[in-house]
This record gives sequence, structure tokens and C-alpha cells, in this order.
Amino acid sequence: MMSLVTFTRNNALPLLRTSITVRIQLNSASLSSLVRLEEKQGYAVVAMHKPPVNSLSLEMIQALSESLSELEKNKCKGFILTSACPGIFSAGLDIREMYQPTEERLKEFWSSLQTLWLQLYGSKMASVALINGHAPAGGCLLAMCCDSRIMVNGKSKIGLNETKLGIVAPFWFKDTFVNTIGVRQSERALQLGSLFTPDEALKIGLVDRVLPDPEAATAVAESELKEFLQIPAMVRYLSKMRIREAALKDLLENREKDLNTFVNFATTDAVQKGLGIYLQSLAKKN
Amino acid sequence: MMSLVTFTRNNALPLLRTSITVRIQLNSASLSSLVRLEEKQGYAVVAMHKPPVNSLSLEMIQALSESLSELEKNKCKGFILTSACPGIFSAGLDIREMYQPTEERLKEFWSSLQTLWLQLYGSKMASVALINGHAPAGGCLLAMCCDSRIMVNGKSKIGLNETKLGIVAPFWFKDTFVNTIGVRQSERALQLGSLFTPDEALKIGLVDRVLPDPEAATAVAESELKEFLQIPAMVRYLSKMRIREAALKDLLENREKDLNTFVNFATTDAVQKGLGIYLQSLAKKN
Amino acid sequence: MMSLVTFTRNNALPLLRTSITVRIQLNSASLSSLVRLEEKQGYAVVAMHKPPVNSLSLEMIQALSESLSELEKNKCKGFILTSACPGIFSAGLDIREMYQPTEERLKEFWSSLQTLWLQLYGSKMASVALINGHAPAGGCLLAMCCDSRIMVNGKSKIGLNETKLGIVAPFWFKDTFVNTIGVRQSERALQLGSLFTPDEALKIGLVDRVLPDPEAATAVAESELKEFLQIPAMVRYLSKMRIREAALKDLLENREKDLNTFVNFATTDAVQKGLGIYLQSLAKKN
Repeated sequence: MMSLVTFTRNNALPLLRTSITVRIQLNSASLSSLVRLEEKQGYAVVAMHKPPVNSLSLEMIQALSESLSELEKNKCKGFILTSACPGIFSAGLDIREMYQPTEERLKEFWSSLQTLWLQLYGSKMASVALINGHAPAGGCLLAMCCDSRIMVNGKSKIGLNETKLGIVAPFWFKDTFVNTIGVRQSERALQLGSLFTPDEALKIGLVDRVLPDPEAATAVAESELKEFLQIPAMVRYLSKMRIREAALKDLLENREKDLNTFVNFATTDAVQKGLGIYLQSLAKKN
Repeated sequence: MMSLVTFTRNNALPLLRTSITVRIQLNSASLSSLVRLEEKQGYAVVAMHKPPVNSLSLEMIQALSESLSELEKNKCKGFILTSACPGIFSAGLDIREMYQPTEERLKEFWSSLQTLWLQLYGSKMASVALINGHAPAGGCLLAMCCDSRIMVNGKSKIGLNETKLGIVAPFWFKDTFVNTIGVRQSERALQLGSLFTPDEALKIGLVDRVLPDPEAATAVAESELKEFLQIPAMVRYLSKMRIREAALKDLLENREKDLNTFVNFATTDAVQKGLGIYLQSLAKKN
Repeated sequence: MMSLVTFTRNNALPLLRTSITVRIQLNSASLSSLVRLEEKQGYAVVAMHKPPVNSLSLEMIQALSESLSELEKNKCKGFILTSACPGIFSAGLDIREMYQPTEERLKEFWSSLQTLWLQLYGSKMASVALINGHAPAGGCLLAMCCDSRIMVNGKSKIGLNETKLGIVAPFWFKDTFVNTIGVRQSERALQLGSLFTPDEALKIGLVDRVLPDPEAATAVAESELKEFLQIPAMVRYLSKMRIREAALKDLLENREKDLNTFVNFATTDAVQKGLGIYLQSLAKKN
């Protein structure tokens, strides 16, 4: 255990540079917290643990952000991003953050998500997503930010299914999608809100490998990460930036505009009504 | 039958907004006109009918443009674009429009084509191309503007074969091509003027499905369109725009320049001579 | 034999236009020089011949540049780029040019490479790379600049493996890579410095055809080139530029900046130390 971070209400992280002033060492009693960090030989495992579905609430987003900062502070060179919740990688953004929110919290929520994407998509660390369960919407986004994607076969699906919930993926979700599966597949899948089986995801390049069970997938994720770690860190990072810097720059230069667009869109009557119906349907299921 | 439109000489359509002032209801006696519109449950079928090869003359381009406007005016949510001429989807631009033209008509011709592309590629309606015959050049362009492409197997081919006729596809044809099949395939096929069999087109992503006969293809086109129509129209459209808006904006901002480039190019002695030889060879065949 | 050029110290070639003032006809005694030009019916064969590995020294780069200029001056319409050294297409940039260089020569080296890329990637001639051996780094770049790539099967590999040598591919290498194999494959391969077997290269689109032996590959390269040469030269070139002009313009507008970036990077202690170790390891092998 390197450390475990569950800060809340702190989205002022300097981007792409990690310099949190207070390091928090948590004891094993905190293992039930939102993100579990485990130290391995030369890398870390970042396991999301917010039962039941690793929904990305403000607190969860910030916990992930702080975890990445903590790893970089500890000179960690790479990590495997996975889930500690059975059957689910991450269900994506917590819809309840968007339903009847205060404007202040809604803004902090979205700004924290921007920060997390900028950190993860532009990370100096090497990263492999070990997708051991469903990965819709924001869950798919987290996986796409990694340098490689290994998925466990089974009933899980992955994709940007925003339109199925009546919402539109922001432009930086789209950029990440296009950089992963290309223009045409993105155009179709974005419109239809497609969720792909592991084999379908493999075929269009949304994941790089599909393994039959979690053990095999974990072994491949480790060997994959080690392949990245064999490359000198700085030249590997600079090579990654050759591809990703345009998209990162685009959000960095348009954060405020994107934030306002999101807040205005999310608080429209139509979206609020849709989210209300969706949340009611979820409540009935439970 | 919703209506059938065969306006001529009106290329002043407001882009992406449909507001024609006079709605024309045509009776069944007009079924032999250039474009046949058929109302289905929740969508329309737009069937090109300009024998023998659905060549895109000024009148045909404007008829297609008006048809789309008419559909949008009638709150139509989606359509299947296909051909009512056996064995041909569309042979593309009518070469005769470019051979020894008056400057006025040549300009109107090209401007109408720009308008049609802007309408079709940026349409708020969902669309599926049911490619039931040859689709070279402009025929391929029309198909690529749709959200999905279903092709009937057989001897038909599809592609941007402009270089084989001694001309160069304009930049917005190229943008549409790259957005459909990617950079490398476009680079090769644009240079060679490649025409692809249905299976080859499927392999490079130029079409999405190949079916053995028109009946099977029609059924798949319908189910495909219905899948698009199940998504809320506005978020589906905005998601499509995430991908297409850059290309649309590029032509909108460069219409005049593109028009002048085309007129200057088409009226050079070399091109006129080439077109003359080509038209003579066609005349001999008939 | 058309001619054979082995100029040194002349990187002031006008870009994309060929107008060298003195044409040099070399006799057959010069056949052992750096680049062999052989005239075929309607095209030329450009065979690199700098044993043992066709490393791209300043002289070799300039010889290639002059060869292309010479071909264009002779109204040559197309060429096959290949190697006259067994088992190797080209090992890429000559590392010794970067190790403890004078600033003057280092600048001339890099500027010559920029010139060669601009000539080759933007060539009016049609071109096919006949990859008859290893093609790492700069060797892969030369192949990617051609209009088509035919590779001989066997133990040879191809790819941009710069990170394995502790260096970062410049942005125009990256642009060429992305235009050939797409964003995602480039992102992964650039970071890992991947070298691909012929079959792997075929699968990701880094080469277009793989043939079992040099004779079969040569025959296919010839028929491939002839297919390009059947298209009118000007419209074929303009179609190619539709795809490549953005990348070409990007380097043309940033040559000086790219030159300074390279010189500053190559002369850092870290890079010099790494290159020294690498050259020592090569010396021990021999």
C-alpha cells in the first residue's frame, strides 16, 4: 500500500504537474475508501472501489485525481487502472450530480472531471486499463485515456452511450474517441450511443486485447505495462504528447467555455426532466 | 406519397434550415419525375429517378435539395436514399453540365451541388443510403453523406474515380472521403480513382453492410434507419455535428473560393478537350 | 542508366521544384556510389547503395535529394525506391552524424533531411517503395513517403523505433506515420518504438502488400507503379496534395523552429551520452 487518497472539494490541482502540499498516509482501515492504491514492483494498481458501480461522483473524481497526483509525487512510473467492484469497471458520471444540483457543486463537478481527464490523458506515467466489467460513458472515457486497454471477456460492454441517456458527449470525449477508434466508427457509435461487447470492441480498436478471465487479463495487463516501462520515461511521454497534445490544448484553452456549455445544457428543463425519469426508473429497479 | 419536387433554377436555399415558401403537392402522374418521395411509417424513401443513370444535372441536384427541404418541412425524422433506376445508384455529376457551358449555368450548377452537400452531410434527419447499383464519383459522395451505407452485392462499384476522368475531387469530397475511410485509403483511392466492388468497399469501410439482393438490403436499410431513429433526434444530430461540423464549416467559409476554383478549372482548354473526348466515346457506345 | 548523383554539402535545393544548374552525367565507373539510378520503360529505379546498411549520412541524404531532382529534370514520371544492399532497406539516420558533431554540420544534416522529406512526400512523381530488407526509423520514413509500399517477407522489420534509441521522432515523422496507419496505431507504436514483421505491418496498413521473395515483390512493385502512372500526372499529383499538403505546409512554415529543436535536443548531455553508449555497443558487435 502506497497511500490512499479521498480528498473532497479540491479541484484546483495544477494540471499535468503534481504538487500537493500534504501527503496523507492512510492505514488499512481506510481500504474501504473510494480508490485503492497498491504498490507493485515498479508500478501501482489503482482500483476504483465505490460500490456498487464506481459511479463518478465529485468525490470519486477528486479521489482519482488525488491518487494520480500521489503516484506522481512518489515517482511512480506507471499504473494499471481497474475496478475493485465485481462486474463493473465504472458506470460513468454519477447522474445524481446533474439532477437538481446547486450551480456551485455542478460547476465543481464538471471542472473536476476536466482536471481528471487532463491528468489522465496527458499523464507522464504509462498506464493500462484492466477493464474487468461494464465501462459505459465516463467509464469508457477513463479506459480510453490509458495507453493500452485489456478487457475481460463476458457480458460486459464498453462505449460512449450518452445519446441513449438523452445527452451529448462533450467535444473532448469525442476527441478521445476519434483518437482511439477513428472518425467513422466514432461518428456512428456517438450517434447511436453504441455499447460494444469485448469482441466488438476489439474489432474496432476500442480495446487492444480481450482475455477469457480476470487472471489472464491481469497477467497481460502487467506484461503490457512493463513493455511501456522499458522505454525511457521522458521520450515515451514526449512521443505520446505528439499525438495527444492537440486535444489536451483544445480543452485547456476552452475549459471555461466548456464548463458553461455543460452547466447551461444540464440545467435545461428537458435534460432535468429526462434525468428525473431515468433516476425514477433506477429507483424502481432497486 | 408525401410530395414530389422538381424545382429548377433555385439554389438560394437557406443552408441547414428549411423554409421553402410554397409546398407543392404532386399527384401520382408526376411519379416519373426526378425524385420520388414515398412516405413510410416514421420515415421516407427518397428514390432518384432520372433514367438512365441518375446523372446529377442542375435540375436533378435541385430536385434532391428541394426534396430534403420538403421532408424537413414535413417534420420527417429520417430517410432512405436510393435509386429507382435499375442497376445504378447514381453515375455522379452530369458531365454535360461541364462541357461548353455558359458561365452562369456552370456557376449555378456548382453552387447547387455545394448546397446539396451542405444539406445532406449536415442533415438533422437520420439517413441510410441503400446503394442498389453503381455509385461512382458524385454517386459515391451522396452515399457517404448518409449516416449508414447498405450495398447490394453484384457487379456494381463505388468510389471517387475523378482522376480517371482527368479531374480532381474538390476538398470537401476529400473531407467526406477521409471521414469515411480514413487518410491512407483516401490517399490511395483518390490518386488511382479506384472503384471498389461491394466486398472491397466493405473491407475498407466505404459501406457498412453488403447484402446479397435488393430485398435483403432494403430490410437491413430499414432496420438500420430505425436504430438511428430510436435515439432522441436533437442529441443524435448534435453528436453527428461533433464529427462533421469542421468539414461543413470549411466549405461554408470557402464557398466562393471553391466555386471560382471549379469554374476556372472546368473551363480550361485541357479539361474541355478531355470532356469532349469522353462525351464522344459515350455517344459512340450508345 | 540515366545519371548518378553524389553531391555533398548542398542543401539549398528549391523545394518541390527541380532546377539544378549543372547536370552531371556519371559513367558506369561510378556505379558503386551512394545511389544507383536505373532507367526503365517509363520510370526509374532508385537503389540506395551505401554498404553495409544504407545509413542516412549527410552525403547519403543529399545524394537521394539530388537523385530525385535529377529524375524530375529528366521528366521522369515515377520511380521505385529500393536498396542495393542485401537484407537492408535503410537503417535510418546515421547516428554518427549526431554524436559529437560540429553545429554547422549538424544543422546541415537536419536541414538536408527536411529537404529530402519535403521532396519525397510532396513529389510530383509517382513512387513505390520496394522494401527488400530492414526499414527502421528513417528507413521507415522513406518508405512511408512513397505512394505505395511492397515488402519482401522474411526476417526484416519496419517501424519508427526512435524511443528505443532514447530519442523522439519529430512532428513530421509523426504526421507521416498518422497519415499512413492512423492515430491509435501511431500513438502506441511511437511510444513503444515498435518494429513490425511484414505480416504485422500489413495488418496495420504500414505496408500495402507482402510478397514471399524479391522477384515477386519486384514484379508487384512494377505493376503497382504502372497503375499510378496510368492516371494523368497532374490530377494524380493534385489529388495526393489534397491529403499531404497540410503536413507539408506545417514543416515548411516551421523549418527553422524544428531545426533548432533538433539541434538543442541532440546536443544535450543525456542524448550525447546515450548515443555514445549505443555507438560503443555497435563497435563491439563488429
